[in-house]
Amino acid sequence: MRVGIFDHMDCAHSVKALDGCDVTHGHTYKVEVVVEGEMVDGMVMDFKALRATAKKAMEKYDHKDLSAIFEVPSAENIVQALFRDLQKDLPGLYSVKMWEGYNKWAEAMREDI
Amino acid sequence: MRVGIFDHMDCAHSVKALDGCDVTHGHTYKVEVVVEGEMVDGMVMDFKALRATAKKAMEKYDHKDLSAIFEVPSAENIVQALFRDLQKDLPGLYSVKMWEGYNKWAEAMREDI
Amino acid sequence: MRVGIFDHMDCAHSVKALDGCDVTHGHTYKVEVVVEGEMVDGMVMDFKALRATAKKAMEKYDHKDLSAIFEVPSAENIVQALFRDLQKDLPGLYSVKMWEGYNKWAEAMREDI
Repeated sequence: MRVGIFDHMDCAHSVKALDGCDVTHGHTYKVEVVVEGEMVDGMVMDFKALRATAKKAMEKYDHKDLSAIFEVPSAENIVQALFRDLQKDLPGLYSVKMWEGYNKWAEAMREDI
Repeated sequence: MRVGIFDHMDCAHSVKALDGCDVTHGHTYKVEVVVEGEMVDGMVMDFKALRATAKKAMEKYDHKDLSAIFEVPSAENIVQALFRDLQKDLPGLYSVKMWEGYNKWAEAMREDI
Repeated sequence: MRVGIFDHMDCAHSVKALDGCDVTHGHTYKVEVVVEGEMVDGMVMDFKALRATAKKAMEKYDHKDLSAIFEVPSAENIVQALFRDLQKDLPGLYSVKMWEGYNKWAEAMREDI
C-alpha cells in the first residue's frame, strides 16, 4: 500500500542555460512524498509524521534562492536532492514528485537514485 | 490502457490512536477508481458505468460515521475495503486511491490485496 | 527520472454508442505528457521544449470536432492517437494521460502501444 502527502515551498531560482529562465524569478513548488509499506495497526504511516518529515526536508529550500544552493537549480536536481535527504528518515520512501508552479513536474523514484 | 474516474464522499470518523484525530470530525474523501484493460470498440469501459459502480461501493460509507464501521477508520483501511468491494464488480480493477481531505492519500493496488 | 507537463485543448465530439453522449457536445481536455530518461546537465528535458512538442501534437485536435477525425472519439482512442503522434518526436515518451473534462481520464503507456 502507498500513502502520500503533499505540501508547498516558495523559492527563487534562475537557470542560466535556459532562455527566459536566466533572470531570478520564483515558483511555488508543490512537493508530494510517497511511502510504500505494509499496514501496521491499519496504517502504513501516520500522515502527520509523514508531513512533518517532508516539511523538515523542505526547510532547506523554502524561502531560499535555489541558485545559491544548486549549480543548476532545475526541478530534476531539486527533486533528486529531496529524495536523497528524505530517504535517510523514510526507509519506505517510494517517490518524490515536485511541481514547479502549476503545470510541469519532475519525479524521482526509488530506482532512479 | 488505463481509465479512471474520481468522485467524492463525505464521512465522519475519529482515530483513537492519533493525537488530535481522536475527536469525531469529518472529511470530504476523493476516491479515484482505475481499471486496466484492452480496448473494445474504442473503450476500456464506459465512464458512466465505471462511475456508477464506484458510487455504489461508496454508498456504504458516504454520509456515515466510519468509526461505527471500521475499528481503525484510517485512509488505508477504508481504501482497502473499497478495493475489495469494487473488485467483485470490476475484474480489471487496477487501483483505488483515496484522498482524505485535500493533501494526503492512500492507494490500494492490485498487488496489495 | 520522469518529467511531465500538462496543457489543455477544447474540442467537440459525440459518441454514438453511448446514451446521453450521442449529441454533439464538448470538453476541455487536459493532456499530460510524461517523458522518462537520464538527466543531462541537470535536466531530462527542457519543460518549454516538452510543452511545445505536446502543443504541436494537440493542434491536430484543439478547437476541432473530434467526431470528424475519429470513428469513435472516445478518450481512449484520442489518447492513443496522441501517444502515437508524440512518440515520433519524443523517444523517451513514457505516458500520455488525458482527462475528458474534470473527473474522468484515460492513460496510454509505452507498453500499451
